[in-house]
Amino acid sequence: MNEIPSRLVENALNEIARLPGIGRKTALRLVLHLLRKDEPEAVALGESIIRMRREIRFCMRCHNISDGEVCSICNDASRDASTLCVVEDVRDMMALEQTRQYRGLYHILGGIISPIDGVGPEQLHAASLFRRVGSEGIAEVILALPTTVEGDTTNFYLYRHLKDSGVRLTTLARGVAIGDELEYADEVTLGRSIRQRLPYEDTLRRD
Amino acid sequence: MNEIPSRLVENALNEIARLPGIGRKTALRLVLHLLRKDEPEAVALGESIIRMRREIRFCMRCHNISDGEVCSICNDASRDASTLCVVEDVRDMMALEQTRQYRGLYHILGGIISPIDGVGPEQLHAASLFRRVGSEGIAEVILALPTTVEGDTTNFYLYRHLKDSGVRLTTLARGVAIGDELEYADEVTLGRSIRQRLPYEDTLRRD
Repeated sequence: MNEIPSRLVENALNEIARLPGIGRKTALRLVLHLLRKDEPEAVALGESIIRMRREIRFCMRCHNISDGEVCSICNDASRDASTLCVVEDVRDMMALEQTRQYRGLYHILGGIISPIDGVGPEQLHAASLFRRVGSEGIAEVILALPTTVEGDTTNFYLYRHLKDSGVRLTTLARGVAIGDELEYADEVTLGRSIRQRLPYEDTLRRD
Repeated sequence: MNEIPSRLVENALNEIARLPGIGRKTALRLVLHLLRKDEPEAVALGESIIRMRREIRFCMRCHNISDGEVCSICNDASRDASTLCVVEDVRDMMALEQTRQYRGLYHILGGIISPIDGVGPEQLHAASLFRRVGSEGIAEVILALPTTVEGDTTNFYLYRHLKDSGVRLTTLARGVAIGDELEYADEVTLGRSIRQRLPYEDTLRRD
């Protein structure tokens, strides 16, 4: 597919093909679709991407994506500010929000510890979590990281740093199948997992 | 998934989810990927789409996508200007170019006749094909439309208009499996199909 007779198209195709999970054939299909559509539609797509990336902010408290300094969840006075749910990324936060079973706040860790990928605690928003726990009157921290080796490692790292802080450390009930990702769990199972959360230390005992 | 805490992200997600074959889950994954990448990378993607759509031109001879008035293929003096290959769209032209078995010119029909979709000959670049055949010294027209009912209908429509024009009418050898699309055929089969093209009338006889 080196035969694209337009540098403009070649350019757009290359940029689209850099997206994860999008190969050159799919990129070509998308590019030709955009050429077939009216100009305003394609321009709106391009502009929405640029605006989002240029103007997006991250909540200074929980690192959630946000249109302002503090995100809409942290700003919501009706939520329970004494409970923090630690998630890997925004998608997991959104999956939990969708269950409508949780009314506390979040802390977006921005990843999990993975030595193979060069991700250690310094690459994560762990220090700011410890600061929040020490200063915001938090009573409970829910560790809602994935049930993978990396997730377990990260959970344990956070547990070691927080176990003497006086907060209650809990984790999601294992209603979600081991190894599955939060965002793909059905709402009922996921909602039950956050309602029936367990003391983190219970999960250290292998039954 | 109504819980996106940023209108900027919601906006971009909606625009991306309008693309064919991209659902909201995929769009969300792409949006979060773009937020994780450096700003210039996301901006380059958006700008390449806008520039492409705003500045793209279509070749005034063959309707190919082009950066100028006439596309690079029509402009290439080393190509055989007496042979025209009629294809449904740019993707099929590109698939044929990749075989490196064809050195003539193209005519991009811009679709095929499909009454169900409201596509008749007037919606296609058929009139300009007939003009080219009458004025450009064309000796052969290769009908390389898909082997579907709509493709056959369109082939036959073009055949009826061109059969008394004195040009040789050929069609791709049926090495490509019936019902398959050109762009997904392997290069060897497709290359052979255009080398071993048959007189169109041969394909009207059902054996």
